[in-house]
Amino acid sequence: MTPSNHRQVVLARRPQGRPEPEDFSVVESLLRSPQAGDILVRNLYFSMDAGFRHWMNAGSGDDYLPEMGLGEPVMSLILGEVITSNNDAYAVGDLVMGRLAWEEFSIATSEDFLTKLSSPLEFPAEYYLGVLGGTGMTAYFGMKDIGQPQAGETVLISAAAGAVGVIAGQIAALHGARVVGMTSSNAKAEQLIRDYSFDSVVNYREADSLDRAIAQHCPEGIDVYFDNVGGITLNAALKQLNANARVPLCGAISTYSDDATQLPPGPQNLFEMVTKRVRLQGFMYTDQVERYGEAMDALGQWLRSGQLRDAQYQLRGIENAGQAFCDMFAGLNLGKTIVAL
Amino acid sequence: MTPSNHRQVVLARRPQGRPEPEDFSVVESLLRSPQAGDILVRNLYFSMDAGFRHWMNAGSGDDYLPEMGLGEPVMSLILGEVITSNNDAYAVGDLVMGRLAWEEFSIATSEDFLTKLSSPLEFPAEYYLGVLGGTGMTAYFGMKDIGQPQAGETVLISAAAGAVGVIAGQIAALHGARVVGMTSSNAKAEQLIRDYSFDSVVNYREADSLDRAIAQHCPEGIDVYFDNVGGITLNAALKQLNANARVPLCGAISTYSDDATQLPPGPQNLFEMVTKRVRLQGFMYTDQVERYGEAMDALGQWLRSGQLRDAQYQLRGIENAGQAFCDMFAGLNLGKTIVAL
Repeated sequence: MTPSNHRQVVLARRPQGRPEPEDFSVVESLLRSPQAGDILVRNLYFSMDAGFRHWMNAGSGDDYLPEMGLGEPVMSLILGEVITSNNDAYAVGDLVMGRLAWEEFSIATSEDFLTKLSSPLEFPAEYYLGVLGGTGMTAYFGMKDIGQPQAGETVLISAAAGAVGVIAGQIAALHGARVVGMTSSNAKAEQLIRDYSFDSVVNYREADSLDRAIAQHCPEGIDVYFDNVGGITLNAALKQLNANARVPLCGAISTYSDDATQLPPGPQNLFEMVTKRVRLQGFMYTDQVERYGEAMDALGQWLRSGQLRDAQYQLRGIENAGQAFCDMFAGLNLGKTIVAL
Repeated sequence: MTPSNHRQVVLARRPQGRPEPEDFSVVESLLRSPQAGDILVRNLYFSMDAGFRHWMNAGSGDDYLPEMGLGEPVMSLILGEVITSNNDAYAVGDLVMGRLAWEEFSIATSEDFLTKLSSPLEFPAEYYLGVLGGTGMTAYFGMKDIGQPQAGETVLISAAAGAVGVIAGQIAALHGARVVGMTSSNAKAEQLIRDYSFDSVVNYREADSLDRAIAQHCPEGIDVYFDNVGGITLNAALKQLNANARVPLCGAISTYSDDATQLPPGPQNLFEMVTKRVRLQGFMYTDQVERYGEAMDALGQWLRSGQLRDAQYQLRGIENAGQAFCDMFAGLNLGKTIVAL
């Protein structure tokens, strides 16, 4: 039976800089009935993805996503269960994922890029938003295709405790690389070393000099810099790259909150990139649709063998969605930030 | 017979910013006799390479080249003829190329990375320092391996009238791309369009806004930006890249003259590099030794068919070597700058 109304979390104001809980508000909304072709989904988990901060800015719409509207439900990757289906491709009880919104129920159409999970699930459902979803595949393709870590090489990972970073580090480790992380607290640093195969972790908040801290933790230079943050960290890492270094550009969380007209200066010494034959490459896992199976197989196998461990920061309740998003920008999470309804 | 003395051009002072003729001076020096294993080379042509400016700075020595010493002959790529040989690998009359110096005669050893040209030469000797040498191979590998221009794509080339740029543009054109150059005078712009297959050329010195000029000349965005200059031009080009754009980083002439501690800010909006899946890659043709034959064959074939035209700016006389080097930084050349002795 279709509920007549439900709760949504809307964009109450456009974040200025780092998002704050007041940027979001919970509203009670009418839920329309699903039309022909529609399905009605009861949402179970919201995936928190820092990149979505970008589309909260005015004028941010692009080929990838439209700008989020003020007063509109916040867009997000969502996992839910089909409870009504007017579409032959979906049955009641199917678990689906797609770019929906922070709301208790979603009316979804085939235009929402829904993915149906095969039943029964081998792993907990929320893994498919994280380590077995876009997060894990981002780490997989970025590290495998661009990073290409070799045994004995040094791999530096920024936002190492972030959802992608913690997986990217483990993938580098199982290829035999020495893995160095950067994070914002000693607690996270210790946990990354203890539970997630990192060899050494920089707490950049306690470092007098980013350059010196990187040099100390990477005494043989950097062969792969997996960049999740951009800004001054990228700048500092580029200075210590070895010849033929690879730099997967995965995200730029340090700049998502900035006014695009006032971004920090980018890397300066580009001549070094020439003489060192450095490769910097932006990528999105969504370009590799035909290889999702390969990635899922590899990630699943590593999870089974225990070489890869899932990490989650989970809050419960739709009313905490805004808080969870803010927590992620404050670096409170270790691993994937998930809101469970 | 070994001459007892000869002229050399030495680094009289370290250039501050853009090199000036007074940074170089001609001296008369004793020429020692070649020892066992040495060859004596009468130098015929000096290749002027902007990248060598870097090693005129104090503390610039690296894996690639040592720092040039004050009062020492200026290092350069040189083509000459063997006039005395104490080495079985070389015969009198052989034409050889290598990293020697601005001097009338050089005593060379096997450590100078000499390349012997096969006789008889199909093309003028100085081509082997330019279009059929490191210059042409830089354009070839950068465009072929990283740029990968497709028919109908837009390829933007900075320092388009430079030695590498004018070849890179022609290679892009013969792959069916629309080729846009950037140069510093209307005369060079017209010549690039008339003689060197460029479709459109920006005179950046007359542009009010680099951003607007690039947008006007590249109305469909940029698919390949072949970067010879770095700095603000790279920054401007990055803003107008299309999805999946490729950026071969070939040089950074705009920054060679700068104090490394005061380089201009690099590209800022790195998040765009992620969402656009941009690939930036530094490269050196010297990594492709095993493919020199492939490159020479392709370049030779294009020269024969007339699809590729050589461009040279040639000064005569060792006393003009410093001037030629400075002219190149002032942008007086179109094509390869060569000093003929």
